[in-house]
Amino acid sequence: MISVILIGAGNVASHLYRAFLNAESVVVKQWYNRSFEAIKSYKNDTEVINDLSQLKEADVYIMAVSDDAVASLSKTLPFTNRFVVHTSGSVSLHDLDKKNTRGVFYPLQSFSKEAEMDFSNVPICIETEEKTKLQMLKDLAEAIDSKPYKISTEQRQTLHLSAVFVNNFSNQMYRIAHEISDAKHINFDILKPLILETANKVQEMSPYMSQTGPAKRNDKKTLKRHIKLLENEEHRDIYELLTQSIQKTHGIKYKFNSKKKN
Amino acid sequence: MISVILIGAGNVASHLYRAFLNAESVVVKQWYNRSFEAIKSYKNDTEVINDLSQLKEADVYIMAVSDDAVASLSKTLPFTNRFVVHTSGSVSLHDLDKKNTRGVFYPLQSFSKEAEMDFSNVPICIETEEKTKLQMLKDLAEAIDSKPYKISTEQRQTLHLSAVFVNNFSNQMYRIAHEISDAKHINFDILKPLILETANKVQEMSPYMSQTGPAKRNDKKTLKRHIKLLENEEHRDIYELLTQSIQKTHGIKYKFNSKKKN
Ligand SMILES: NC(=O)c1ccc[n+]([C@@H]2O[C@H](COP(=O)([O-])OP(=O)(O)OC[C@H]3O[C@@H](n4cnc5c(N)ncnc54)[C@H](OP(=O)(O)O)[C@@H]3O)[C@@H](O)[C@H]2O)c1
Ligand SMILES: NC(=O)c1ccc[n+]([C@@H]2O[C@H](COP(=O)([O-])OP(=O)(O)OC[C@H]3O[C@@H](n4cnc5c(N)ncnc54)[C@H](OP(=O)(O)O)[C@@H]3O)[C@@H](O)[C@H]2O)c1
Repeated sequence: MISVILIGAGNVASHLYRAFLNAESVVVKQWYNRSFEAIKSYKNDTEVINDLSQLKEADVYIMAVSDDAVASLSKTLPFTNRFVVHTSGSVSLHDLDKKNTRGVFYPLQSFSKEAEMDFSNVPICIETEEKTKLQMLKDLAEAIDSKPYKISTEQRQTLHLSAVFVNNFSNQMYRIAHEISDAKHINFDILKPLILETANKVQEMSPYMSQTGPAKRNDKKTLKRHIKLLENEEHRDIYELLTQSIQKTHGIKYKFNSKKKN
Repeated sequence: MISVILIGAGNVASHLYRAFLNAESVVVKQWYNRSFEAIKSYKNDTEVINDLSQLKEADVYIMAVSDDAVASLSKTLPFTNRFVVHTSGSVSLHDLDKKNTRGVFYPLQSFSKEAEMDFSNVPICIETEEKTKLQMLKDLAEAIDSKPYKISTEQRQTLHLSAVFVNNFSNQMYRIAHEISDAKHINFDILKPLILETANKVQEMSPYMSQTGPAKRNDKKTLKRHIKLLENEEHRDIYELLTQSIQKTHGIKYKFNSKKKN
């Protein structure tokens, strides 16, 4: 049995709490948050506290708090030589106060409080200062059906950056498509199956292999018409830059005639 | 019963053929392709031909051929006053020869020959010169479990452009993430669940609502670190442009200090 104390009550902590509750080999001994409001409704299931001095002993303390709070909060923990991990993709392991044994338990997913999360779809990137602690984090990930990956600090920061591309930037592509189609009174629902299929394809095939479309085909007529159709200069810049990026990836050379419309 | 003659044997025609074969209210009377090779193995299921002069009468002729071939091939059809549609997102209805009644049957999905396609995930954008033909195309779409959408020429071209953003450009985001993570010997599999979740989220929520990450939060420390991590200038340009795009969407102002590294 692994005893866990959760620190923080945001998106990540809330999902971890629910997952640990359902895991047979994990017990959440305490749940701390600086404001009591977020956790008080759980008081029948676990011990909820908002005073760090009440923290008990546990196998691991999971600090799922805002990136900026990790360093300072880890300093104020009223104990030493225990195992403390944070859940951030970008914060260094060394930002945790060195009075405790440090680690990282970074769930590479996009959490929001409303949506349920099945942890079998959450890869967990783990890193520890002491090799002996690695197994515990692996067990913890597996206890909630997650797949653990041992990752170095540098790799984790690269993964966090890659996640911006596949998550935030892809989502912005959806947003721009939404803007463009809304302007012509087109129901965005029409595009949803294609969004899913695009994500599905790269589960089996590399993104390189699954690329299609006018940029990859170097279909100049369509490329020109699309630039003409785009009324927003920023959208045109994005269209040109990403078309060039696709063509570079696939070894094609094409230059848009004019960077600006008119 | 709707009788169909298919013209072309590429990705779209092949998937349509299989779907029509399974549809109770549709019969594929003939299947034409200029090269016999691609269709000859179907000769026991339908009449396969590679000579336009052998074309029989049917309720609708579906020309699923390369965009560039639509106009010329439609001219060479040896009949008039019949109903002919193409399947392209970008070709005008008026590119079809006006000696026949014209229409469009554009499946908004990304097809590839290997992968099976469930047409319940394929919205079909339909457009007809004569209003009376609209119902037949609707029935045809519904016969293969697709959802038909009546769309104008302008809307269809905007949808085709939007599809480039959600499909080709998102896929290029996956590709860049693949490059970045490969360079650090990170298994791309770790990113796949996030790719799926990102696409899943916008099935229920708008892309505006589902945006997260350092650009949206205006997390300057992370934005700077990411730019520093990116070794490829093109990747940096994309990071900056898309960060600015997200920030504009969400009403945030942030300027990257230096456009170029070093
Ligand atoms: N959201 C994701 O998709 C995701 C994915 C992977 C990793 N992460 C990482 O997981 C961590 C938590 O993210 P989150 O999305 O759960 O954040 P969140 O929903 O914004 O919640 C932040 C939590 O941190 C607490 N907190 C903030 N500043 C604090 C301070 N100075 N002292 C004590 N507590 C403080 C907040 O307490 P109050 O309730 O009192 O405000 C809240 O419980 C971050 O490191 C993040 O990078 C997030
Ligand atoms: N692929 C998609 O995801 C997708 C999605 C929606 C709409 N579409 C549209 O559907 C249409 C077909 O696309 P596709 O992907 O199926 O294309 P494809 O796989 O490249 O197949 C093209 C077909 O057109 C035939 N063809 C080409 N030039 C011809 C000519 N001059 N005369 C007669 N036949 C000719 C080819 O015949 P041969 O076999 O003899 O070469 C082949 O059967 C296009 O308008 C495309 O824009 C495609």
